[in-house]
Amino acid sequence: MLLEQINRPEDLKRLSMSELETLAGEIRQFLIEKLSVTGGHLAPNLGVVELTIALHTLFHSPYDKLIFDVGHQAYVHKILTGRRDKFDTLRKYKGLCGFVKRSESEHDVWEAGHSSTSLSAAMGMAMARDLKGEHNKVVAIIGDGAITGGMALEAMNHIGHEKKNIIVILNDNEMSIAPNVGAIHNYLSKIRSDRHYLKAKEEVEHLLKKIPAIGDTLAKTAEKLKDSLKYFVLNGVWFEELGFTYIGPVDGHNLPVLMDTLKQAEKINGPVLVHVVTTKGKGYSPAEQDSHTWHGLGPYKIESGQVLKSAGPPMYTEVFGNTLIELAEKDSRIIAVTPAMPGGSGLLKFAKHFPNRMIDVGIAEQHAATLCAGMASEGLKPVFAVYSTFLQRAYDQVVHDICRPKLNVVFAIDRAGFVGPDGETHQGVYDIAFLRSLPNMVLMMPKDEKELRDMMQTALEYNDGPIAYRYPRISGTGVSIEAPPKAIPIGTWETLREGGHAAVLAVGPMVQIALEAAEQLAQEGIQLRVVNARFIKPLDESFLQQLAIEELPVITMEEGAIQGGFGSAVMEYYALQRHFNMHVTVMGIPDYFVEHGSVKEQREEVGLTVEHLVAEVKSLTPRKRQRV
Amino acid sequence: MLLEQINRPEDLKRLSMSELETLAGEIRQFLIEKLSVTGGHLAPNLGVVELTIALHTLFHSPYDKLIFDVGHQAYVHKILTGRRDKFDTLRKYKGLCGFVKRSESEHDVWEAGHSSTSLSAAMGMAMARDLKGEHNKVVAIIGDGAITGGMALEAMNHIGHEKKNIIVILNDNEMSIAPNVGAIHNYLSKIRSDRHYLKAKEEVEHLLKKIPAIGDTLAKTAEKLKDSLKYFVLNGVWFEELGFTYIGPVDGHNLPVLMDTLKQAEKINGPVLVHVVTTKGKGYSPAEQDSHTWHGLGPYKIESGQVLKSAGPPMYTEVFGNTLIELAEKDSRIIAVTPAMPGGSGLLKFAKHFPNRMIDVGIAEQHAATLCAGMASEGLKPVFAVYSTFLQRAYDQVVHDICRPKLNVVFAIDRAGFVGPDGETHQGVYDIAFLRSLPNMVLMMPKDEKELRDMMQTALEYNDGPIAYRYPRISGTGVSIEAPPKAIPIGTWETLREGGHAAVLAVGPMVQIALEAAEQLAQEGIQLRVVNARFIKPLDESFLQQLAIEELPVITMEEGAIQGGFGSAVMEYYALQRHFNMHVTVMGIPDYFVEHGSVKEQREEVGLTVEHLVAEVKSLTPRKRQRV
Repeated sequence: MLLEQINRPEDLKRLSMSELETLAGEIRQFLIEKLSVTGGHLAPNLGVVELTIALHTLFHSPYDKLIFDVGHQAYVHKILTGRRDKFDTLRKYKGLCGFVKRSESEHDVWEAGHSSTSLSAAMGMAMARDLKGEHNKVVAIIGDGAITGGMALEAMNHIGHEKKNIIVILNDNEMSIAPNVGAIHNYLSKIRSDRHYLKAKEEVEHLLKKIPAIGDTLAKTAEKLKDSLKYFVLNGVWFEELGFTYIGPVDGHNLPVLMDTLKQAEKINGPVLVHVVTTKGKGYSPAEQDSHTWHGLGPYKIESGQVLKSAGPPMYTEVFGNTLIELAEKDSRIIAVTPAMPGGSGLLKFAKHFPNRMIDVGIAEQHAATLCAGMASEGLKPVFAVYSTFLQRAYDQVVHDICRPKLNVVFAIDRAGFVGPDGETHQGVYDIAFLRSLPNMVLMMPKDEKELRDMMQTALEYNDGPIAYRYPRISGTGVSIEAPPKAIPIGTWETLREGGHAAVLAVGPMVQIALEAAEQLAQEGIQLRVVNARFIKPLDESFLQQLAIEELPVITMEEGAIQGGFGSAVMEYYALQRHFNMHVTVMGIPDYFVEHGSVKEQREEVGLTVEHLVAEVKSLTPRKRQRV
Repeated sequence: MLLEQINRPEDLKRLSMSELETLAGEIRQFLIEKLSVTGGHLAPNLGVVELTIALHTLFHSPYDKLIFDVGHQAYVHKILTGRRDKFDTLRKYKGLCGFVKRSESEHDVWEAGHSSTSLSAAMGMAMARDLKGEHNKVVAIIGDGAITGGMALEAMNHIGHEKKNIIVILNDNEMSIAPNVGAIHNYLSKIRSDRHYLKAKEEVEHLLKKIPAIGDTLAKTAEKLKDSLKYFVLNGVWFEELGFTYIGPVDGHNLPVLMDTLKQAEKINGPVLVHVVTTKGKGYSPAEQDSHTWHGLGPYKIESGQVLKSAGPPMYTEVFGNTLIELAEKDSRIIAVTPAMPGGSGLLKFAKHFPNRMIDVGIAEQHAATLCAGMASEGLKPVFAVYSTFLQRAYDQVVHDICRPKLNVVFAIDRAGFVGPDGETHQGVYDIAFLRSLPNMVLMMPKDEKELRDMMQTALEYNDGPIAYRYPRISGTGVSIEAPPKAIPIGTWETLREGGHAAVLAVGPMVQIALEAAEQLAQEGIQLRVVNARFIKPLDESFLQQLAIEELPVITMEEGAIQGGFGSAVMEYYALQRHFNMHVTVMGIPDYFVEHGSVKEQREEVGLTVEHLVAEVKSLTPRKRQRV
């Protein structure tokens, strides 16, 4: 095996072209085998095997900076930079991260789980290089989906203007995570269809040399015409207009051509865009045929390509998708909006039912949010289905375009709380803090999948501004979801279990943990009151008042950052109401970024468990009726 | 006066072309006179007089949707839609808002103070229209600066793809707020320089008809070539590539041409981009000559064009700009980064001193933040100078690209707290909540301009992750700033006045208020301890412990949202430390959007005053030594 001899990028430089091609095959086999056990982002990584080999063979990492956009396509990079042996621990607790990670290797000069950041990072590194008088290369590798993100477009505008020496590799696999959308995609498709571009280029350039100046006015025009022809035939007009030299498209699986093209790019002064066409899942036919399913997935059987699924109750995501169809059948105002996550958000079935009422804007969270605002201003009921972590991209739009003018936008916030193996870049643990500080926002989280349905109905019936329901990346509790969804009065909690020792105000999946803790405590004669704090905002003030009257110690429990979280909301309430004698204990996620692992491991790490809640309750001195 | 007869858009439709032109002159005069007293965004509005008249004459607002990007250029729109009489109250407390505002008029169908939102809103409204089977026009008016914002580019990509009937008016005044930057601007400049474009277009189109097919391969190419020529000569290649029909450039001050062009645009199917060239400050020579100063300003003398300035201590902004020069002279790692606000951020002098170390990225907050991350990853010390309200645009980049990898980016957050006449779209009141919930962030606010300098030094010496200092849009206290800045130990507060009745933990300008309150209280024999809580994060735990030992009632005071704010941070600390007996009273901004007025009026509205603090302290039962 050649692969076993490759422990750092320098080792590649000794291999012949045919050895590099053999290596590519070995890496593919390695990925297919390892990921069949661990799961992971298989298809994207199979697509960049040759590209990554070419980059590490030609450039000198870490002196030259290889910047991977959305680090989930950096497995090959990890293999080539001394981390091959750690792939059995991929995406596992304390194991190899599924994304690029600076603390893992000096070769990981940038890290990202969100897309479209690589061009800005590249520009920053190029500016630093030039100011320091150094000469390293800066290379960003970005997908055709990610390049349509607003910040990538902002960066291209800046790079094109400043004419910095930066190589941008556009990894065009014809698909971002979902079938790509938007005008830029159409443009790329047009380029791809031009099979004869090289021959045509030569012939037209030959022709151009013969074009004479035609009259006074046209002399200037002909000059321009020449530029225009060149641009157009090279098929990089759009990029060239922004100031890039465009090279491509080249076959991303043809290693010799790829290497030649990159060598050419290296010599060009100013920013270069190399358009590389790759196939997601290349070399493994189940993944090639269905790159959507094989984008990121759990374990599978290599021979049959069968993806292993655990049985059990449906995921919250699935319940959301199915329920939205039910609601949309009755209410024509509902429009679903997703930023490139129709599958991840459980909306594929919805899209089939209502092709005109499902809007996939691509990786464009800012636009998606304000698009919803525009729709809402005209009486529609847009449902913005978005992961908690990606909603961060639209924070200003939520503040300025939705909460401020109080528009009826519904937020369906998926992946709220711990997300498991995707880890720290994807944790959905800040949305409670950043949403509840905004006026006019209603924020809910259900205790089970039935309540999610009820909250969806609640949001539909609510017409007094923005309203959000957040739900976790886990299976439901298995409760029956047959009954038609029923609206819950805004700002009302429910007591699930009575108790006079203390009260736990639990949010979402913490309710289940609280009920289990209460059961255990009851066996020791300690009665814990369990409250389903299903509205994070507004709070149920009558509940809080009642607790104050009883002077019952309160424990808040949420799968979100403690700083600014639900617990703080409860304390703010008591402070503003001058109930200074309330004992509030807050349980949540402490002030650091929690890394990848299972959700269970992540909860254990921060103490969001039955065991910790039991201990917390036992440590309290009951103050009930102390003064009564 | 024609102007006096115009009370709604319909009134325009009765006027002849020459009357409309007369009206334009009257509106200019009206703006120049009214704003000389109230202040406001003069130059942008003088630039769109004819354009706004043309739009309201041709279209049928509010049935047709006129969507103004960054609503500060909508004064003419307000004049024409029945709000002429309210201009004496412009930007004043309870008066006419300086931005478009839905609650003010049915003609304000969209509202925005942040730029680049209009295209997303237009797309939302167009989609709603089509789903409802209606036929109104949707027109977005956006500046050449705003169109480079990421979300506008995202929206253009989407609009181009979907081919919706939307008219985008690109108001190209050759300047955004600062001299515009970026490749898109270069492209627009290229178009502008083509004076002969119409004639050239005709001649080239004539020529094109004669081009024969040249051989097999070139037959296809010639077809493309034709398209390419058309695109290029029309000079709208870039926009056309995104799927827009491009019309222009037209002179935005030539009303007949403008009206004709808009009529033409109205007939085109699919998205149209009308490129209108205007002059900021048109018709008032001081504003034409210095559109930067005259973008938005206070009162001035009409005849001389002298801008009236109040004497007094320097603004915090100015102290920041001057101090940054001092620091940069000694430390070559410092790079200033601004998203189109070099003047507003006090960086014009810095740019003169260090032209290579001042990066204006245009309206591109997301890119700016991650650019800083890239620079920091290579050892530079970028200072991201940004208004609190605009930092909202880069929230995800702060979380994901800076705090998570713990990069040494310095945030200079201007306009933190109330911003006065700009009002609710610009209030800097959420940054405490959204920044302090992020791991690795250090957040400071100075009590005076000397301390701002010390904090800048602190940030420079700190190399353990991101650090931010926020400062208000007001004058300093007049304290001496001669001494060289000196770093403050991270996480340390200071007691400015001793007292045993209660302690106020005051942030930033609240310190001054607290000192005045303490002085008043002392006259009544009540001793208020005043603490300068200059670190919002991390908290000074030794201070908080000491207060707990003394069981002194605590009042927190901040010019920021109570929800998730500094007060909550203090309560979280006591909850996590199980100091359940602490009485914490929180003073801050309650849970609604505070509208325009003076900073003084805004503080009075929410009770952030000496009077309220005095009353708050008096209402407390002293508990000191209750248990000791």
